[in-house]
Amino acid sequence: MAIRIGIYGYGNLGRGVELAVKQRKDMEVVGVFTRRDPNTVQTYGAPVFFTDDALKMTDKIDVMILCGGSSTDLPKQTPFLAEYFNVVDSFDTHAKIPEHFKNVDEQAKKGGKTALISVGWDPGTFSLARLYAGAFLPDGKDYTFWGKGVSQGHSDAIRRIDGVQDAKQYTIPVESAVELVRTGKNPDLTTREKHERECFVVAKDGADKERIEREIKTMPNYFADYNTTVHFIPQEELNEKHGGLPHGGVVIRTGATGEKNENKHVIEYSLKLDSNSEFTSSVLVTFARALYRMNADGVVGCKTVFDVPPIYLSDKSREEVIASLL
Amino acid sequence: MAIRIGIYGYGNLGRGVELAVKQRKDMEVVGVFTRRDPNTVQTYGAPVFFTDDALKMTDKIDVMILCGGSSTDLPKQTPFLAEYFNVVDSFDTHAKIPEHFKNVDEQAKKGGKTALISVGWDPGTFSLARLYAGAFLPDGKDYTFWGKGVSQGHSDAIRRIDGVQDAKQYTIPVESAVELVRTGKNPDLTTREKHERECFVVAKDGADKERIEREIKTMPNYFADYNTTVHFIPQEELNEKHGGLPHGGVVIRTGATGEKNENKHVIEYSLKLDSNSEFTSSVLVTFARALYRMNADGVVGCKTVFDVPPIYLSDKSREEVIASLL
Repeated sequence: MAIRIGIYGYGNLGRGVELAVKQRKDMEVVGVFTRRDPNTVQTYGAPVFFTDDALKMTDKIDVMILCGGSSTDLPKQTPFLAEYFNVVDSFDTHAKIPEHFKNVDEQAKKGGKTALISVGWDPGTFSLARLYAGAFLPDGKDYTFWGKGVSQGHSDAIRRIDGVQDAKQYTIPVESAVELVRTGKNPDLTTREKHERECFVVAKDGADKERIEREIKTMPNYFADYNTTVHFIPQEELNEKHGGLPHGGVVIRTGATGEKNENKHVIEYSLKLDSNSEFTSSVLVTFARALYRMNADGVVGCKTVFDVPPIYLSDKSREEVIASLL
Repeated sequence: MAIRIGIYGYGNLGRGVELAVKQRKDMEVVGVFTRRDPNTVQTYGAPVFFTDDALKMTDKIDVMILCGGSSTDLPKQTPFLAEYFNVVDSFDTHAKIPEHFKNVDEQAKKGGKTALISVGWDPGTFSLARLYAGAFLPDGKDYTFWGKGVSQGHSDAIRRIDGVQDAKQYTIPVESAVELVRTGKNPDLTTREKHERECFVVAKDGADKERIEREIKTMPNYFADYNTTVHFIPQEELNEKHGGLPHGGVVIRTGATGEKNENKHVIEYSLKLDSNSEFTSSVLVTFARALYRMNADGVVGCKTVFDVPPIYLSDKSREEVIASLL
């Protein structure tokens, strides 16, 4: 019997989850849950329900995948649903993960359910890369570089500037910094030295481009600490050349072994993604499979990607995995 | 209390294990076991015992790390010791892993112990990279490239040729093949297209170099299926420039997501190692920590790296791991 998946929230991430489930023969989507009028939501085939109806379907859903945002949706939704469903979310506000973990853990234990938070690529697969590499090379240091990719938060920040019609912002690792890290010299790098920001901006007719550029480059937190380049382009060019949501990055750990630490080693884990949200969705769905199995084992409470035995992620049998992947 | 480690076999790998344990505050080596006269074995401080004395020390060792070879040592030693100790080995004869697993599993269950086989980087961390990436991108294909690095088996094969005094062989990925794989075109690559072999050979005085080169290049299994380059150099140059045992490689998986598979993704995991054996040792020791914890959980029988929850590899607390790595 297929693992029955519910999708709670149906934006880019929710749509990606529905497509990712279609790629996996052992899983099926039994319902998409939305705050909108269900009749107005077009899926790739999954039935649509109003969010309030979810609690009537606790016996029809093995794992609920939460596809809301980290700022306001997930801090409330994940703990609430964790009492009634096995849940997976992609909560990515790094600083608030310990608090979110605690809230979800309490509710999951109350309901005797299993929960998995902060699943995706960072946090997610990059977190795993950091944990493995750090354990193998304790005498070392790791660095995470993001990009080249579109940061939606930074693109939004530019769009809020007066006179801006549309914008897309790329985060780009500074190649010389990446190369320096690979040498194993464990450099101390400032924010400015690690990443640069490139902005493609469509200005409204008659807007003061110099002012817009200045406002972007001096914006605290978002741009002021980075070397930022601003290009003004027509809307058509933005649509044509900057329509996607590519992203990626690399986790690099360098470390030393030997009697006098004379041998250096470099471990790298990198991603190059055409679609940030679809890859995140694929990771969520894969961990939903593992969560289903952990729940069947009797695991209760909130867990993270660090707790998941890798074999639970695969749809292959133990014999097949040992013969073909080990 | 520190995790008490035994080292069974004391060559390059065993020495690396002793050094790797020194890097980890929560572990200690309580004994090195050798088939040689213990008085002739110089360690970095660990006491040395004759292999036959190991069974008298079952209550003093939490995990025995086996550091013998895969061809003749481990197929006998790991099943034998698995009845009396929690054991970790680096068995790397891929085709025989299922058989080895079965033998070790039977003995570990007989003794109520936990065993972990085929730990290192391939099999080992590369296996994990293949499993994770394959689960995240089921509609895709993966490729493993090895090198640039020294293959000891191939170096030995050259040394057995008449007239050869010494030799070192490097396995090198064909860069154009690696680049082609990264495009996501899922090429079918022959053995020759994936790797090339470069040999540095010291010929004995008066030896026929043309014949040696011909014998190398036509050697079945080892060289005949590859583009091979042979350089004759003096012994001093071999010692000076080719004394180390560097290795490494990369696992690349490309896959697609989306309604029409329109979005391509590339996952890469790569290693660049100054010392093949010392990195393998570090991985063995890290998994010995995890094995100790799995045994404490009541896990019995033979397991693989796929069964190990990543958090068990870290010496950090759950809170610290969540706050600093997730």
